[in-house]
Amino acid sequence: MSERGLLIVLSGPSGVGKGTVRKAIFDSEGNEFEYSISMTTRQMRTGEKEGVDYFFRSREEFEELIQTGKMLEYAEYVGNYYGTPLDYVNQTLDSGKDVFLEIEVQGAMKVKEKVPDGVFIFLTPPDFDELKSRIVNRGTDDMAVIDERMKVAREEVDMMRHYDYAVVNDKVDLAVDRIKKIIESEHYRVDRVIHRYEKMLKEF
Amino acid sequence: MSERGLLIVLSGPSGVGKGTVRKAIFDSEGNEFEYSISMTTRQMRTGEKEGVDYFFRSREEFEELIQTGKMLEYAEYVGNYYGTPLDYVNQTLDSGKDVFLEIEVQGAMKVKEKVPDGVFIFLTPPDFDELKSRIVNRGTDDMAVIDERMKVAREEVDMMRHYDYAVVNDKVDLAVDRIKKIIESEHYRVDRVIHRYEKMLKEF
Repeated sequence: MSERGLLIVLSGPSGVGKGTVRKAIFDSEGNEFEYSISMTTRQMRTGEKEGVDYFFRSREEFEELIQTGKMLEYAEYVGNYYGTPLDYVNQTLDSGKDVFLEIEVQGAMKVKEKVPDGVFIFLTPPDFDELKSRIVNRGTDDMAVIDERMKVAREEVDMMRHYDYAVVNDKVDLAVDRIKKIIESEHYRVDRVIHRYEKMLKEF
Repeated sequence: MSERGLLIVLSGPSGVGKGTVRKAIFDSEGNEFEYSISMTTRQMRTGEKEGVDYFFRSREEFEELIQTGKMLEYAEYVGNYYGTPLDYVNQTLDSGKDVFLEIEVQGAMKVKEKVPDGVFIFLTPPDFDELKSRIVNRGTDDMAVIDERMKVAREEVDMMRHYDYAVVNDKVDLAVDRIKKIIESEHYRVDRVIHRYEKMLKEF
């Protein structure tokens, strides 16, 4: 493969099953996606390796990358930063490999600003009523909390319009199959392969 | 299916194998495309049925449809018109069915003007040298004829940039598989399904 790989971004509302679908895709046959290795400011644990489990950086270095726009997306969790370094993603794409990211909708929109030619796939629930009842019945009767969750969920679902594809997660293996077809098809897009043909066309 | 079907246009340079691939797609399992019924001015033959084999029309009626922009594409062959009526295609799409057209590159570009949201798939040879030698060795030594054929072929190949997808016809069953994946993926495009979700989103 000589052309640039695809950045594939899988996202969708909380509770839709993004993680399960992403795991099933990586466990499935015939995928050649590159795991996106995250960067973190937390301590390296025994057995972990730099550039394999994470890119381990100091808080200062991480914040420098944020400041200079070199993080594709990032979040702070329990006092440490976690994020996707832009240079690493670009180098992997330039080597011709696809990079697969599974992230929250807010992060996905930031990625779209930096990599507009990525393939943005929105995972939807088969039934919005079910998603609603899952949100409402998540172990609390506090109406304010439920209202806040519904507000967030509505905003997340409303983000669908900014994506390229909407895939229903009715069954995990069906969703995986659809996503893999989308990724293969995207490799056939003329604007992605025209450079490869332009040389041939000149010699024709 | 409540949303509008897709108009799928398969085209490519002469000699690339469009007809063979189209036939293999229609013979394959799990396709629900509608054959595009052509309109013609030629006489109905014994056993043929109006609206099944062709829409049979007089020369005057056909030319009226051309004049009023109601032919998606058309050509004259041995003194008779053959073409694809726009209203029929639109009605079939509105009923939720996909319509599959296999036509020459010039016709495909006319279709694109009238149905810009169609899915335009360009079938390419696996090897441009082979296409070239097939054109050069097509039973003539007349350099002027060969030059003219090469000119036409170059123009046809150059049309690729106006298409959505480029599919290599290295093996018919592989090309069929790729095209079917493209068509399925196109059904998941957000701009095609967002109307279906908008009602759900409002009620969510």
